Amino acid sequence: MSTPTTDPIYLDHNASTPLLPEALEAMLPYLRNEHGNPSSGHIWGRRARDAVEKARGQVARLIGCAPWELVFTGGGTEANNLAILGTLEARTDGRRAVVLSAVEHAAVQSPCERLAKRGYTVRTLPVDRTGMVTEEGWRAAIIDDVALVSVMHANNEVGTVQPIRALADRAHAVGARIHCDAAQSVGKTSVRVDELDVDLLSLAAHKFYGPKGVGALYIRQGVPVEPLVVGAGHERGLRPGTENVAGIVGMGVAAEVVQKKLTDEMARLEGLRAALLEGLTRAIPGLTALGHPVQRLCNTLNVSFPGVTGSSVLRHAPIIAASTGSACHGEEASHVLAVMGLPAELTRGAVRLSLGRLTGPQEVERAVAALVEGWRQARS
Amino acid sequence: MSTPTTDPIYLDHNASTPLLPEALEAMLPYLRNEHGNPSSGHIWGRRARDAVEKARGQVARLIGCAPWELVFTGGGTEANNLAILGTLEARTDGRRAVVLSAVEHAAVQSPCERLAKRGYTVRTLPVDRTGMVTEEGWRAAIIDDVALVSVMHANNEVGTVQPIRALADRAHAVGARIHCDAAQSVGKTSVRVDELDVDLLSLAAHKFYGPKGVGALYIRQGVPVEPLVVGAGHERGLRPGTENVAGIVGMGVAAEVVQKKLTDEMARLEGLRAALLEGLTRAIPGLTALGHPVQRLCNTLNVSFPGVTGSSVLRHAPIIAASTGSACHGEEASHVLAVMGLPAELTRGAVRLSLGRLTGPQEVERAVAALVEGWRQARS
Repeated sequence: MSTPTTDPIYLDHNASTPLLPEALEAMLPYLRNEHGNPSSGHIWGRRARDAVEKARGQVARLIGCAPWELVFTGGGTEANNLAILGTLEARTDGRRAVVLSAVEHAAVQSPCERLAKRGYTVRTLPVDRTGMVTEEGWRAAIIDDVALVSVMHANNEVGTVQPIRALADRAHAVGARIHCDAAQSVGKTSVRVDELDVDLLSLAAHKFYGPKGVGALYIRQGVPVEPLVVGAGHERGLRPGTENVAGIVGMGVAAEVVQKKLTDEMARLEGLRAALLEGLTRAIPGLTALGHPVQRLCNTLNVSFPGVTGSSVLRHAPIIAASTGSACHGEEASHVLAVMGLPAELTRGAVRLSLGRLTGPQEVERAVAALVEGWRQARS
Repeated sequence: MSTPTTDPIYLDHNASTPLLPEALEAMLPYLRNEHGNPSSGHIWGRRARDAVEKARGQVARLIGCAPWELVFTGGGTEANNLAILGTLEARTDGRRAVVLSAVEHAAVQSPCERLAKRGYTVRTLPVDRTGMVTEEGWRAAIIDDVALVSVMHANNEVGTVQPIRALADRAHAVGARIHCDAAQSVGKTSVRVDELDVDLLSLAAHKFYGPKGVGALYIRQGVPVEPLVVGAGHERGLRPGTENVAGIVGMGVAAEVVQKKLTDEMARLEGLRAALLEGLTRAIPGLTALGHPVQRLCNTLNVSFPGVTGSSVLRHAPIIAASTGSACHGEEASHVLAVMGLPAELTRGAVRLSLGRLTGPQEVERAVAALVEGWRQARS
């Protein structure tokens, strides 16, 4: 038995992950004496530039691209905006349609809405009850007027993994580009740009144990993209501004470490997730797991508690740090669950539990006890 | 006499400054256990959010604005782009002219060029031989078709401080807004938005001993700005994306520390700069200091070495870490010196020496010796 404790349990790794100690170690010199501007020609500048380029190689290896196909950004949101707005700005072939899925993050939805305001046609792919885009839907939407398809790899709320390769094949067959927001899947499952065959792919370091405030966009060689922000020529002119050297170094090391441990960590989290679901199911009749039963992230468990709201369960389980939806939207109802066509009863009872490096068997055991007790109190 | 040493001497504080130890100390918890996403409702999220808001207050106090008038960005370049492109996007009064000075950084020039491509009229204010905008120039350019004036506070290459208040009065008199790129002056001289009376002002943390990869834009309450990047509602919708919590915390502490020490540090650097200029002048007949003799930053000394190129002096003074122009443009000829109307002889001999916290009397003494020797070798 574990020692009783009231320490909070972090089950919100999909909102943000703790920085790896190895990444922090590697960052520290660039927060201490290595203060050079990578654009400077002198020794401090050269060392900073070398550090940025080393990190570019590390991130490139994680997703299987060439280093020069990566542009560092200020985060995943900026990468998504650059991919979507920058690709449409660069296209000159007259195609005016964009396709996204109904379960995209706001960082993809909002740039598409901006395009709609500018006169582009925006088509939204419906999803089924597991949160998966439907083949019928994408066959109808991805046709020869489409400039860009943007579909996320794994959903942040329910963990469902989309059939990106099939979408890419279809997009390319009709002459469209495809962008994939992989912020939530990098580091949690294998993400290889050649296997997915995408043209653009977004990463956010803090979702895979790197620092906040840094991300990257993979741009397949030859795909034209216009910058959102202009200035001096940093990042091949696609993202000017003095590089966040320490942040980029941390992202690189995080990429290297998560890549090395990926297979083991996926198996470990899959086991813990199963134990968590089993513990909850045993104590709570009618508990329902949402999302796709198989095509999903190993670490994400979105469960609906019967007869209560998800937020009331969390209120009565104060040691659990989790959320009822995307972190970015606070207490608002989840738009992801809303478009999955689930009964209202299931949607309102949903809680997203996302596991990671801070989760071990003890945390799962304590979480089950706290959530079951929270559910009981919420019901009464 | 100082002990002879071959340690390099960092005289490139205008390219980037070393992070303050106090700032790093404050950042470390947010790189270790405080890994929450500020948007999360639980305890980790709340603590991260509180840290961001504390830093917002610290930066606001440095420039004398209200905390809610500050938007954190990924750096100074992004802040300048948001100010310029975002303001023009938000204006609905039909004004189609933008005014900038001839000595702006690429992060201001490039967004103005983008506006020119979109059909806006862009007027460039000429500068005199000290790098100062001329009254004749700005009276002719800032007229009632102008939507936005964007002029830097202090020039990064020659240190000349522009008459922002006079430009602001003129801009407001004709119904225009005024933006000021203060990336190079914040922390080196007093920057108060009420004294300058600007509508928008850009900051870059790494120019005042904060971390790279974080900046801010001051937007006077009521001034409409459209975001460049769209997504979830972070930073009042003006800069969505998970906040760079550690970077923002570091920027806040750096703001607080530089504010406290500003008067003393300005006097100290002024003295060191005078000693550096005097040492060089005594040994090198015909050495010329460029920029404004009085209206200038305390730390910046742009000197032209006679009969040689600036880069050859630096090549022969390998322990000096300095540059011949803006860090962002490497070996290219300085566009700032080019537009100042100086004789070619003066321009080609120019070296920018920028002092800061890493500069003491010993560094000045050693720098004089190394630069004089570098000049002698370059001449022969």
